[in-house]
Formats: sequence, C-alpha cells, structure tokens
Amino acid sequence: MADRESPPALLRVLNGERLDPPPIWIMRQAGRYLPEYRELRKRTKSFLDFCYSPSLATEAVMQPLRRFPLDAAILFSDILVVPDALGQKVWFVEGEGPRLEPLLPETAWKLGEPEKAIQRLSPVYETVERIKAQLEPGIALIGFAGAPWTVATYMLQGRGGDKDEARRAIYQRPQEMDALLAALVETTAQHLAAQVRAGADCLQLFESWAEGLPPQAFQRVVIHPTRKLVRRLRELGVGAPIIGFPRGAGAQIAAYANETGVNALGVDTQTPAQFAYDVAPEGMPLQGNLDPQTLVVGGEALERAARDVLIAFKSAPHIFNLGHGITPDATPENVARLVQVVKGGV
Amino acid sequence: MADRESPPALLRVLNGERLDPPPIWIMRQAGRYLPEYRELRKRTKSFLDFCYSPSLATEAVMQPLRRFPLDAAILFSDILVVPDALGQKVWFVEGEGPRLEPLLPETAWKLGEPEKAIQRLSPVYETVERIKAQLEPGIALIGFAGAPWTVATYMLQGRGGDKDEARRAIYQRPQEMDALLAALVETTAQHLAAQVRAGADCLQLFESWAEGLPPQAFQRVVIHPTRKLVRRLRELGVGAPIIGFPRGAGAQIAAYANETGVNALGVDTQTPAQFAYDVAPEGMPLQGNLDPQTLVVGGEALERAARDVLIAFKSAPHIFNLGHGITPDATPENVARLVQVVKGGV
Repeated sequence: MADRESPPALLRVLNGERLDPPPIWIMRQAGRYLPEYRELRKRTKSFLDFCYSPSLATEAVMQPLRRFPLDAAILFSDILVVPDALGQKVWFVEGEGPRLEPLLPETAWKLGEPEKAIQRLSPVYETVERIKAQLEPGIALIGFAGAPWTVATYMLQGRGGDKDEARRAIYQRPQEMDALLAALVETTAQHLAAQVRAGADCLQLFESWAEGLPPQAFQRVVIHPTRKLVRRLRELGVGAPIIGFPRGAGAQIAAYANETGVNALGVDTQTPAQFAYDVAPEGMPLQGNLDPQTLVVGGEALERAARDVLIAFKSAPHIFNLGHGITPDATPENVARLVQVVKGGV
Repeated sequence: MADRESPPALLRVLNGERLDPPPIWIMRQAGRYLPEYRELRKRTKSFLDFCYSPSLATEAVMQPLRRFPLDAAILFSDILVVPDALGQKVWFVEGEGPRLEPLLPETAWKLGEPEKAIQRLSPVYETVERIKAQLEPGIALIGFAGAPWTVATYMLQGRGGDKDEARRAIYQRPQEMDALLAALVETTAQHLAAQVRAGADCLQLFESWAEGLPPQAFQRVVIHPTRKLVRRLRELGVGAPIIGFPRGAGAQIAAYANETGVNALGVDTQTPAQFAYDVAPEGMPLQGNLDPQTLVVGGEALERAARDVLIAFKSAPHIFNLGHGITPDATPENVARLVQVVKGGV
C-alpha cells in the first residue's frame, strides 16, 4: 500500500531506517519468467533495440508491478548499452547471451567520447521519464549500470563466462586496463547521472564478475574504479543512494563495503547475512539474498528459505531481494507467494 | 633438496610447523601445460582409461617432478572415478570436459556397493604404490578425492558448469540428496583409505563447487558430509592429514575450516590470506593461493604476485600453491621461475 505522506519504503531503508516488513524487489523482476514479457519481447528481433525502445522497455518495467506489490521498479536496460554507446559492436545471441567484437586494452582509446555515448543513450533516459510518470508514489525507481570491471570483462572477452583474457590484462597491460576502466568510470557516471536527472530515485551498480580476483587485483579493478565512480557521481551533483552489488566477491565484500563509498550493500546468495552485517560499516543497509532456485522450487522450501532470509537480516536496515537474478524457469506464482510471505513478516 | 633425516617438508607443515621457504606443489601440476604430458596422453583415447593405467598415470605424476624441485607428488586420477566405479556412465569430451548419464536423486539406490567400487578402483591404488616406490623420501605423496557435494553435482547435472539441478534437488528432494551424499561419504572414505594404505602420505578433498550455496544448504551438503567423511576416515584408521579445499566458498570458509575436521585449509585465489588466517582455527596450516593466470603471464608480474603470496601467508604454517588449478596455456618456464622464486624466499 503506497503511503503518499512518506518517501517510498525502499528509500527510507536506503536512508538507514529499518522497516518491518522490509521492502522487496527482485533482480530481473521484468524478465523471461513472465509470459507477458516473453510476448512483449517478440515485438523486436534485437535485444538492444528492445532496450532502446522507450515504449517497450517501459512496458517491460510495468509488467511485474501489475502482478506483485513490489516496492521498486528498476529500469529495463542492459549493462552492455555502455560499450554499445561507446562504439563497440554488441549483439545478443538468443539463448546464449551477449557477444561483443572483442576490444584490445591498447585500443581502448578508439572508444567514443562519454558525452557522445550519453547522447546515443537518450532513449534510455526517455524510458526512465516514462516509467517515473507511471509509477505510484510509494514505488521507488532504481537506475543501474554495470560496474567498470564487469563491463570491461565483457568488452575484453567478447562474451560472458570466462574472464581469463580480462584477468590476464590486469597483469600484462595494467596501464591500458586502468585507462579502459577510467573511461568506463566517466561514461558510467554520466550515464547514471542522466538516469537520476530523468527520475531515478536510487542506483544499483552490478559488479557481476567480482569473483576470482586476488586481493591486489580486486583493489585495482573493483575497489578503485568503483570509488572513483561514486566520487564522480557526487561531483556531478548526484545525491541518490547507491547500492553496490559485488557478486561472488566472497570475503572481499569487507573491503568493498568499506572502501568504495557505496551507500548499501547487495549481498549474494552464498554470503551469510551475519558476515555482511559484521563487516559492513555500522548501519549500512543490506540487500538480499534469497537463493533464486527457491523461486523455481516453490512450496514450503520457498517459504522456509524466505523466512530464513528475513530472520538472518533482522538486525540491519534490509531490502529483501534475491542473491542473484531470477531465472527464466521461476514461476510467477512462486514470486507472488514470496511477496506475500515477505509482506506478512516472519 | 631432500633431507633424509626428517619427514617431507609438506608433512611437517601439515603437522603445524612453519617453514621458510614454504613447501610448494601446484594443483594439476601433472597436466596439459607440459608437452611431455600431451605426448603421453596420446597413448590412450579415453581419459578414464588413462587414469586407470598404473603405468601411464604414474608416468604423468613423475613428469613435473623431473622438471621442477616440487615438494609433493599428487596422484594422477579424476574425481569422477568414484561415480564411474559406482556404476554411473562417465566419459570425457575432448576440450569440453566430463559427461555423465545424469542420475536422479531418487534412483541413487541403484548405485553399486562401496566395496565393489573400491575393487574396481584397484588400478588407482596400484598407481599410488608405483609412485611411492619411485619418489625420493623428501617428496610427499598426496592422495585425493572430490568432496561428496562436488561429485554429486556432476552426478546430477551430467556435466560441469551449471549446478542448478543439483542445487534445486537440495530443496526438492532433501532426503534423497542426503542419501546420495551419504553413499558418496562412505565410498569416498574407503577410496581415500585405500590410497593411504597404498602409500599416500596425506589427502586433499576437492570441494570445487562450494560456491553459490546459501548458508543452510552449505551446512547440509558441504559441512555435514565433509565432517562425516573425515570422521569415517578416522574410524577406518586413517591418520593422514587432510587438506580441505572449498573453492568459491567465500565467507563460508570460516564454517568450513572450523566445523569439518579437516587439518589444513586450501585457500582459493580470491580469498585474502589474512581472512583465512583470522577465521581458521589457531595454527591451522593454510595452502594457496597464487592466481593461476600469473603462470600464463610470467615475467615480473608473476614474481611480484608470488612474493605477495609469500608475504601474505607469513604468519601461518604455509604450503605454497595456486588458488585454482594451473591452466593448459601456462608455460613450464613460468612454473620453473615460480618454484625458483618461492625457494629463494621473499
């Protein structure tokens, strides 16, 4: 139930308040598990064209909100619109994922100017405006981008999955890697700032490939660029809270939570809530971390797991979410049940 | 230099002693990065036949020891010999990895008896005997097996990579999962005990798919079965030290190190040494954790990274190793340089 007197629950929690029940949204809540999304998706062949269509992307965002009483909408887009807008060739292979014409770190200077990239991304900001105009006041609107390292791995590898090329580049061409990450920091900051100007209330940074990096490399390619990105956003006048989600960072989320300047921490499935609570700065809002598989499984296992998450995060300002994106084989019925359980409390 | 008066350096460290320089071995040190291995591998078509040939497997084990002054040999085998011996169909697709005729948890009872599996695995124990007979006294011989959960993921998925089927089974068919894991505990315990009887000095448990599990599931499928396995080994009279390697477990290595009963902790690439040191029981030997990519890269980056590892683990009894297996594109020259650097100290 939207309360028109106070800010959206999600923003109150991001501001450090603990709410019972916690607000809930679901990573990839607009997506293939919804039959109406699969229907809508047929309207364009190219996934990027879909992302760049304000009408289609806005409709995708609104679909889950019609079904479930979620506390937030999240922009429908892709983390790879940034390399696309910088001039790298990006396409999506049905059922497999993204492909990019791989970039060599030493040719990163060929990438376009941030300002031009932002011009090319204007349909994204138009989407944000359209969503904002349609949202009820109690529902927060989340903008997002891929964090620099994660986007760089796709740019260097040419696809998801294996990150060996990108990881080797850290050792082999550290200056060029730094330059590529710096270019991504600037473009991503401008991209996120434009989303906030268009109406996004808060932001999420997806560091989806935080795993497998030794501490020195993690500092260099995850912590430093993220800290620069957060600072640059503040310089650009963006006051919106930022949720950082370093998926797979393991014990290194301690450094991430304390050294990047993000306002809230996205906790992945395998990280115990207590660990996140212990290592994060005092009072930092925590988001997470139900196993997405439970939304495929459903039934009592789902309810028990959802309650376990509620209990595990009971000491922190908490945003209920999954520990990773919802999978296409999850069912809308299970999502409905989850939201009921969370809204009902423990 | 083998010292014939005292036990091998690796065993001294596993016994809690800190040595400078630390002993070193390399996960997958017998493998495709060695041209002589690639040549040897051509002698049989099937990878399992190669594993089951005492002469070929022994030769593979000895190859890296002729090139590098390593402190340990490790049995050449595969974690999937256990399902193979239990009667599940297992084969390997060149360049892709293992394939298994997927098992349904509810039909796990069809698996063979542990005792029969051990009989089928007698060539493995003959391999251990042959290696032992050839090893210089200062070189420790490591036996190994996959931990029950990791082996179960392959058995249920039919391949590596995606573990969704196995993860869903934890929620959907918990009793059947427990039964499958219990069967693996018993067979694996007997398999490891037979390796020790044949001459293995110590053991490593590969929990290669420890990542992505929420805490409750991690307890159920990783901690409990590993603890049972360690206890069962002790019941079987095995006193050899056990190195547990829960790759990707992130913050949950704290529970793993304290609750399973393993004697030493294998630390993966991304886990800071200080974190492992802080969460492990006092004095627990730690093994790891150089980024395998540095053995592809070589040069100064390799030397710096190796020294960083030496320094990071300086407070603990330390076994130098990688944080994950060496990759086929590493070079023998880089391995030689690494061993030199480690033996030379910081």
